[in-house]
Amino acid sequence: MIMPPESSYTKKKETLGFVEPKIFDYKSSFAMEFGTLESFQICYETYGNPNADKSNVILICHALTGDHHVAGVHKKDGRYGWWDHAVGPGKAIDTNKFYVICSNCLGACQGSTGPSSNNPKTGKPYAMSFPDLTILDMVRAQKLLLDHLNVSQLYSVIGGSMGGMQALQWIVEYPNFVQKALIIAATAQHSAQTIAFNEVGRTSIKGDPRWNKGNYCDDDRPEMGLAVARMMAHITYLSDQVMSEKFGRNEMIGVDLIKENNGEKKFAVESYLHHQGLKFVDRFDANTYLKLTKALDRFDLVGKEGLVKNLEQVKSKVMVVGFTSDWLYTPEQNRYIAESLQKTGKDASYIEIDHDYGHDSFLLKSREFLRLIRLYLEGADKEEINRQITTKSQIAITRSDVKKEADLKIIGDWVSSHEKVLDLGCGRGILLEHLRKNKNVVGLGVDYNFEKAAACISRGVPVFQGDILKALTMLPDDSFDWVVFSRMVEELPNPGEIILEALRVGKQVAISFVNYGYWKNRFNFSLNGSRITNDVYKDNWQSSKPLNHFSIFEFESFCEHTNNQSSKFRIGRKVFHRGNWKTTCKWLPNLRAGLAIYELIRN
Amino acid sequence: MIMPPESSYTKKKETLGFVEPKIFDYKSSFAMEFGTLESFQICYETYGNPNADKSNVILICHALTGDHHVAGVHKKDGRYGWWDHAVGPGKAIDTNKFYVICSNCLGACQGSTGPSSNNPKTGKPYAMSFPDLTILDMVRAQKLLLDHLNVSQLYSVIGGSMGGMQALQWIVEYPNFVQKALIIAATAQHSAQTIAFNEVGRTSIKGDPRWNKGNYCDDDRPEMGLAVARMMAHITYLSDQVMSEKFGRNEMIGVDLIKENNGEKKFAVESYLHHQGLKFVDRFDANTYLKLTKALDRFDLVGKEGLVKNLEQVKSKVMVVGFTSDWLYTPEQNRYIAESLQKTGKDASYIEIDHDYGHDSFLLKSREFLRLIRLYLEGADKEEINRQITTKSQIAITRSDVKKEADLKIIGDWVSSHEKVLDLGCGRGILLEHLRKNKNVVGLGVDYNFEKAAACISRGVPVFQGDILKALTMLPDDSFDWVVFSRMVEELPNPGEIILEALRVGKQVAISFVNYGYWKNRFNFSLNGSRITNDVYKDNWQSSKPLNHFSIFEFESFCEHTNNQSSKFRIGRKVFHRGNWKTTCKWLPNLRAGLAIYELIRN
Repeated sequence: MIMPPESSYTKKKETLGFVEPKIFDYKSSFAMEFGTLESFQICYETYGNPNADKSNVILICHALTGDHHVAGVHKKDGRYGWWDHAVGPGKAIDTNKFYVICSNCLGACQGSTGPSSNNPKTGKPYAMSFPDLTILDMVRAQKLLLDHLNVSQLYSVIGGSMGGMQALQWIVEYPNFVQKALIIAATAQHSAQTIAFNEVGRTSIKGDPRWNKGNYCDDDRPEMGLAVARMMAHITYLSDQVMSEKFGRNEMIGVDLIKENNGEKKFAVESYLHHQGLKFVDRFDANTYLKLTKALDRFDLVGKEGLVKNLEQVKSKVMVVGFTSDWLYTPEQNRYIAESLQKTGKDASYIEIDHDYGHDSFLLKSREFLRLIRLYLEGADKEEINRQITTKSQIAITRSDVKKEADLKIIGDWVSSHEKVLDLGCGRGILLEHLRKNKNVVGLGVDYNFEKAAACISRGVPVFQGDILKALTMLPDDSFDWVVFSRMVEELPNPGEIILEALRVGKQVAISFVNYGYWKNRFNFSLNGSRITNDVYKDNWQSSKPLNHFSIFEFESFCEHTNNQSSKFRIGRKVFHRGNWKTTCKWLPNLRAGLAIYELIRN
Repeated sequence: MIMPPESSYTKKKETLGFVEPKIFDYKSSFAMEFGTLESFQICYETYGNPNADKSNVILICHALTGDHHVAGVHKKDGRYGWWDHAVGPGKAIDTNKFYVICSNCLGACQGSTGPSSNNPKTGKPYAMSFPDLTILDMVRAQKLLLDHLNVSQLYSVIGGSMGGMQALQWIVEYPNFVQKALIIAATAQHSAQTIAFNEVGRTSIKGDPRWNKGNYCDDDRPEMGLAVARMMAHITYLSDQVMSEKFGRNEMIGVDLIKENNGEKKFAVESYLHHQGLKFVDRFDANTYLKLTKALDRFDLVGKEGLVKNLEQVKSKVMVVGFTSDWLYTPEQNRYIAESLQKTGKDASYIEIDHDYGHDSFLLKSREFLRLIRLYLEGADKEEINRQITTKSQIAITRSDVKKEADLKIIGDWVSSHEKVLDLGCGRGILLEHLRKNKNVVGLGVDYNFEKAAACISRGVPVFQGDILKALTMLPDDSFDWVVFSRMVEELPNPGEIILEALRVGKQVAISFVNYGYWKNRFNFSLNGSRITNDVYKDNWQSSKPLNHFSIFEFESFCEHTNNQSSKFRIGRKVFHRGNWKTTCKWLPNLRAGLAIYELIRN
């Protein structure tokens, strides 16, 4: 787990102070996907102020059992919002800059119309007669609220878990409405396992005799069934690791849903779950739980058409964030959303944060996560700008800077205006930023490092945080004009195959590499039988990781060999630099060049 | 997932035919850990026949909801045993050779005395007055059954899941009784998450009004609560992947525990779970489920003393088998059992099988798994013996064979009688088998490859299937006399640190490696600036994986450098072979030697 270092983000922030929920009363009939409401109410809160053209509006969507109270304090009960550490003046979602709205979703039970609300026709609760609900219904009701607030565009829609699914549904349903979507710990469809867990919870509720087909009264509710459902669901919100750290096998005198067991000695984790169950039945309605979990299970943007097809109309910029330890909506499920957008060249990023808390990581006060949100919404912060200055300075200090400069200049020259560039091992996104600024290039970077991927986000460069091979394999034929290998090809197994794979995805490939055949290496090895160590090859044998060094000769042999076999590609331009990696070198490159940059062109 | 190839194991086996359960009536008082029974009954079955000295007896222990009916068919209902594909004539646990016993465990509800049995004192079911149960109670009752059958030693005790915990408890409680234990998909203690799942199940049962503090009658049982508990537990028995493959998001007209929903359209996985729930309440008793899951949660061989300490008295040979996709009793939890035994030099192996079925993988008809069981019980099969002949032939065909022979000869000479040897990258266990046979050496091999680890098992060589670094790190200081690097050190990152780590674990280290400084390599590289390809270095650049080659010069520089800094170790004996890797080479080894074998001695 990444540990939060000291930083400006841990400084005390101003608080929003007291906030109050408001009610939006929609008095017309509202067509849902599986039924109609004569009218509905939406309970919502707002924070900060809209600017003149209302271009600073952010909509936050809450998770399954969350509500509209995101930030600030409620006067009557002193309750803080569920994301108070993320939303407020000077915070990650900065209410000094943004006008933030969150509504209790349609069908929920915290002030908006749902199964526990009275049906105006009968004067009794809707209960199970409330129409079967969908994520799309929630989003459409939110849109009516925004219309009511005279909001005609969203700077961003943000949501975690069920909120992330709403955010995704938003950019599909209203492609021209949202500038930036932030989808956190979500999924495009429930897996069989997730449906299974939900169904156990629902069966527990319906199996409670007090449920009575949904027609329970306030003083005799199916609390046991609902509490058991909540206990089970709670397990899926945490990782095994964090449960072990929090509770282990500790024992205590605990609380118990079964009254006569109250005060008995039990495992701490048992008591914790009973406590969660007890708290939950106080604030949540069983029929609502049934309807909402069904809405989640029903949500499916994959369907028969496939996710790529169903996301075709998306125009928003998108960032999807997954957490390594989330086993409810797994990193794979989150990555799948981003990949599906990236496959058709959308401006989409995937970021994976290494937190061990499980699904609930998105509710944690995590420095990395909060900084990432801010970088996405506002662009580079001081920390990143300071780095940028160092990198862009005229005096390139490290070898890595020299190589970066060479790549920037040469590959930057090769790429034409408006081309599509995939940068494998993109680092902090400097090449792609340069290409976007100077050549209107649409790019996608790939890097497995979180810090580097976050730097790409701050530059507005779409990035896939993950494995180069995984990224290449998922991309369709011909989806880029250029594939750039900025990462040392030396780190990859079977580089020949990977280069061919890159030539499937891109029409041209640019590879820059350090020539291992450089005369000093040869001289040293033939003399001592040992590798050279210097500022290029920093590690001696005992401190090295396995690498697959190669020379210009070996690279050209590979190209020639492949061409003889299949004529798949040819070598285009090539540039060699001498040992200083700066001065150009024309003759005997395999002996005299320190750095080589090749263009490969698919035949 | 490893796919089962065509093999003799898929041939049709004979069946055991009809089998009948028997009853062992223990008429004395039996002290349990938390109470006393005036008497008890154990229901059991046996298969095959004991040999003259009863040295061929195998005890199988069943899982949570299993029973004594392991194999064969029951006449009355045509039901096959739960492990019929594994136990029978010619099968993995071969009843032509072994006399197999399985009993319904004490406290269960399939014929042995448990909460649903009548308390002879009251004439009514024990219900919740049945003493709180432990795994140790079950094992002690099994021991009384074996006494009754005049069995005074077990060739093997075998169990999966809760059965694996019984097997582990067996070798702790009766260290001199069992020759070989086979522990499958088990754990030494429940994690917080596993306790949490069990507690949800128990709360579901106790929350069912029909449970009535356990005093339900036969025609009004807490079926809903028990069914929900089973539905949830069933999710934990399968992997997400296999659930997706089996059910995905398919819909069907399904069964439902809530009668009025029966026949409604639902997700296939929902219907499956309801079906499992319905089936279960027909055959299982709710109070028994409460008592047994508590016994599981209570089981803790780690405790305050730690698992290493608590396994100190173990004398049996042990093999622990984990499955990659098991998230109930994870590979880590299984590995932890084997590691704790290996830490104090016990004859213990850990094998990890790459099946994607989840916890229930141990019930699958898997060729690899069944072959592994047989290899463990009976030693090398034809397949392995055929390989052995090739390896041992006088004509060493491949370079790998030449190296193996050199290692066998030289390192085999260096090791003294009765020393302890850790072989990192042990392959099929040939060196350790050689050392055991010729020098009574106690060894432990490490290899990440399942096939090779299985070959070690067939040779009776204890093996840790897994990562070399993980194995080294977990082992205590000074736990071996020798650490042997048979695996190419070239594949490891930071080899210097790893060698020092090996010198923490072992007093001496033997390293054999291919000398990259060999003159042909140098000549080739200085001439062409490209690597050599031949039968030693098989891959050209484009097909290589990253490797960290090194020369005799580099290796000795490292040793010298480390010695200058800390005098941690010194070089002992060293042997060089020429380019053919056979003829010894004395002078100018860095230039002339193809192969080097070093002894390092800790100072």
